[in-house]
Amino acid sequence: MDKKTKNVRNMTHWPIKTPTVFARRMLATPKSFIREILKVTENPEIISFAGGLPNPGLIDVKGLAQAAADVFASDGRTALQYSTIEGYLPLRRFIADRYKKRLGLAISPDEILITNGSQQCLDLIGKVLIDPGDRIIIERPGYLGAIQVFSLYEPVFVPVNLNAGGMDTAAFESAVSGYDTKLFYGIPNSQNPSGITYSVACRKICAEILKGTNTIIVEDDAYGELHFSGKSLPPIKKYLPDQTILTGSFSKIIAPGMRLGWVCAPRQIMDQLIIAKQASDLHSNYLSQRIASRYLEEADLDVHIGKIRAAYHEQAHAMIDAMQDNLPASVSWSQPEGGMFVWVTLPVGCPAVDVFTEALKKQVAVLPGLPFYVDGGGTDTLRLNFSNATPARITEGVERLSKVIQSFNR
Amino acid sequence: MDKKTKNVRNMTHWPIKTPTVFARRMLATPKSFIREILKVTENPEIISFAGGLPNPGLIDVKGLAQAAADVFASDGRTALQYSTIEGYLPLRRFIADRYKKRLGLAISPDEILITNGSQQCLDLIGKVLIDPGDRIIIERPGYLGAIQVFSLYEPVFVPVNLNAGGMDTAAFESAVSGYDTKLFYGIPNSQNPSGITYSVACRKICAEILKGTNTIIVEDDAYGELHFSGKSLPPIKKYLPDQTILTGSFSKIIAPGMRLGWVCAPRQIMDQLIIAKQASDLHSNYLSQRIASRYLEEADLDVHIGKIRAAYHEQAHAMIDAMQDNLPASVSWSQPEGGMFVWVTLPVGCPAVDVFTEALKKQVAVLPGLPFYVDGGGTDTLRLNFSNATPARITEGVERLSKVIQSFNR
Repeated sequence: MDKKTKNVRNMTHWPIKTPTVFARRMLATPKSFIREILKVTENPEIISFAGGLPNPGLIDVKGLAQAAADVFASDGRTALQYSTIEGYLPLRRFIADRYKKRLGLAISPDEILITNGSQQCLDLIGKVLIDPGDRIIIERPGYLGAIQVFSLYEPVFVPVNLNAGGMDTAAFESAVSGYDTKLFYGIPNSQNPSGITYSVACRKICAEILKGTNTIIVEDDAYGELHFSGKSLPPIKKYLPDQTILTGSFSKIIAPGMRLGWVCAPRQIMDQLIIAKQASDLHSNYLSQRIASRYLEEADLDVHIGKIRAAYHEQAHAMIDAMQDNLPASVSWSQPEGGMFVWVTLPVGCPAVDVFTEALKKQVAVLPGLPFYVDGGGTDTLRLNFSNATPARITEGVERLSKVIQSFNR
Repeated sequence: MDKKTKNVRNMTHWPIKTPTVFARRMLATPKSFIREILKVTENPEIISFAGGLPNPGLIDVKGLAQAAADVFASDGRTALQYSTIEGYLPLRRFIADRYKKRLGLAISPDEILITNGSQQCLDLIGKVLIDPGDRIIIERPGYLGAIQVFSLYEPVFVPVNLNAGGMDTAAFESAVSGYDTKLFYGIPNSQNPSGITYSVACRKICAEILKGTNTIIVEDDAYGELHFSGKSLPPIKKYLPDQTILTGSFSKIIAPGMRLGWVCAPRQIMDQLIIAKQASDLHSNYLSQRIASRYLEEADLDVHIGKIRAAYHEQAHAMIDAMQDNLPASVSWSQPEGGMFVWVTLPVGCPAVDVFTEALKKQVAVLPGLPFYVDGGGTDTLRLNFSNATPARITEGVERLSKVIQSFNR
């Protein structure tokens, strides 16, 4: 449609009655299905497995209140003023030091930019790297928030199946070879939505396949600290440091309401991310950066994360045990080693959307897997969140869900 | 350059040594000149008129500390959890009520979205409305932050000169008529960088010219509460409510470090802005929204703003008086009725960039006007900020600046 046609079309509908005034990129961007579902499930009577909220009982409210009081008392005027685009240096140093200590990763604070949660990293990466038509390899199923934000930059998504050990590496190799792929986006630790963690072998093979190509890896590590079995595995960035952008978040280990995440990128990419960050919102909330930094000076983060792991372990096992006890053999599910989700595959004749509808009548909310597929698949899948309900409520919810699924199986 | 050529070009430079991996939009986006200058002027010995910082002495640190303590004590766990995309409803209600009371504007809280400062409004507007090649009318000189963020969406800028009463309305009419213009972006109150306020007549004429066209008005009102002469003037949104997006900010009236702004838009546009906001960073910092809302319940905002106005009045007049006393008659400047800036036009033979360099040697920092021009003009202009220095330092700084300018005039 050329400018003139578009103009005439707008004129007949003015003032603003149709979406034709909107930029083309908005047509490609899915409205979040989750947002609509979460509105339905705000009723506290409902046992909700639909969302993705951390357990609020594990937020250290007292510790953060004290950190805030300290910041206001010692340096309030500065903490409330404009600040640098990159973010508070002591906070960036903390992140760099923790990478070194925990994973043996050598990252300079200059290669770290503080963002509004790790979701904003994906927007900045999209701005800086994605031209319309660029090819992005994404996990199948893939993180909905990434699909949504990257869609603004009008790429072509190439989904590659996950299996129990991470990427299907044969399919990944086929997707890479012979193409000019701009990005590979993945969540190797406790993936959202599947709960799958890539094996070390899988990480190495992915890195090997991408080595020497033009493809930049976007390694989203929102859940890397939340494993409750096994140990911390090396990020893909360890194998291909110059080709990998690594993102992280304080949302699951401190508090999501402070909207603090970060992106680590090679210097050349960081220079561009900083320009994009300044254009987007000047800098991240400085008061919250100061509060988080003060909190991390005083708190023992390892002890705190230990509590979160223990609680999520208990919640995950309440869910898995109840599924084993109640669900028919025709239903399968992922075995999470961390994170916040279990991924369920339903039997033939039991569509996820109908399970969602019927479960809601029994006051249980589940999330159909469809929006995690860029190719319309996943109609037989559900994502279940275990981090935001007590073990007793989880057991009760799975029992109710089981009855719904069995009613389809007759 | 087609995909193949681009690919080959990248290959020869891998890993990531050239900007060729970057998206086309980054080539169009200027690196901020101000950022580079501000680094130079961080030395506290320097009297800086170069930045755009609010007076930190006027931030109510005690009041905000108490509000934070109240939020942590009464509802900390919720304030630290994920929240809604749109923002905290009582805060949106406060904004709507204040528009009603102060300007007689009828805006529903549903038409308000809380953003990370008003800079983020411009990014969301760019995402939702601007296709590459779309025409944007912008003031000449225009706000650098808007030029930077809109550039990401690759529009064509059409600058229209400002005069003492606001837009040059004849030039504005010529720029509008016969073209399909997507946006008009302007700052009618105490414009950045010029300090100019549009007269009521100018606002009405601008609205009249745009009425019935497809052009959406983006009315940036970061400084609307900061007028120290005259009274609050009606926003353009009052004349064309369905066609105008109005943005606002708590940065200058509460504290910039909390990064809280908002955008008011007609419902149809708001639906798209909400999708773009969720994709960009899920929602704005909820803890800061709660602290600001609590603060606004307890504080008398009108009394607080009265103090800011009185101080800025004194600071502005220290600058204007020193300019009248010291600068040669060949230099002219704007007469700010509010905001934070004075705009200076230098005589022939006195280039702003050279004044900047020489003034810095005398420990005074000024901002050359060039980056505020999308067409390379303004080489004889300076922006001077008066909100971040004491009246005595302002007088001293202008005296030094005057000597520099006179040295060119010989």
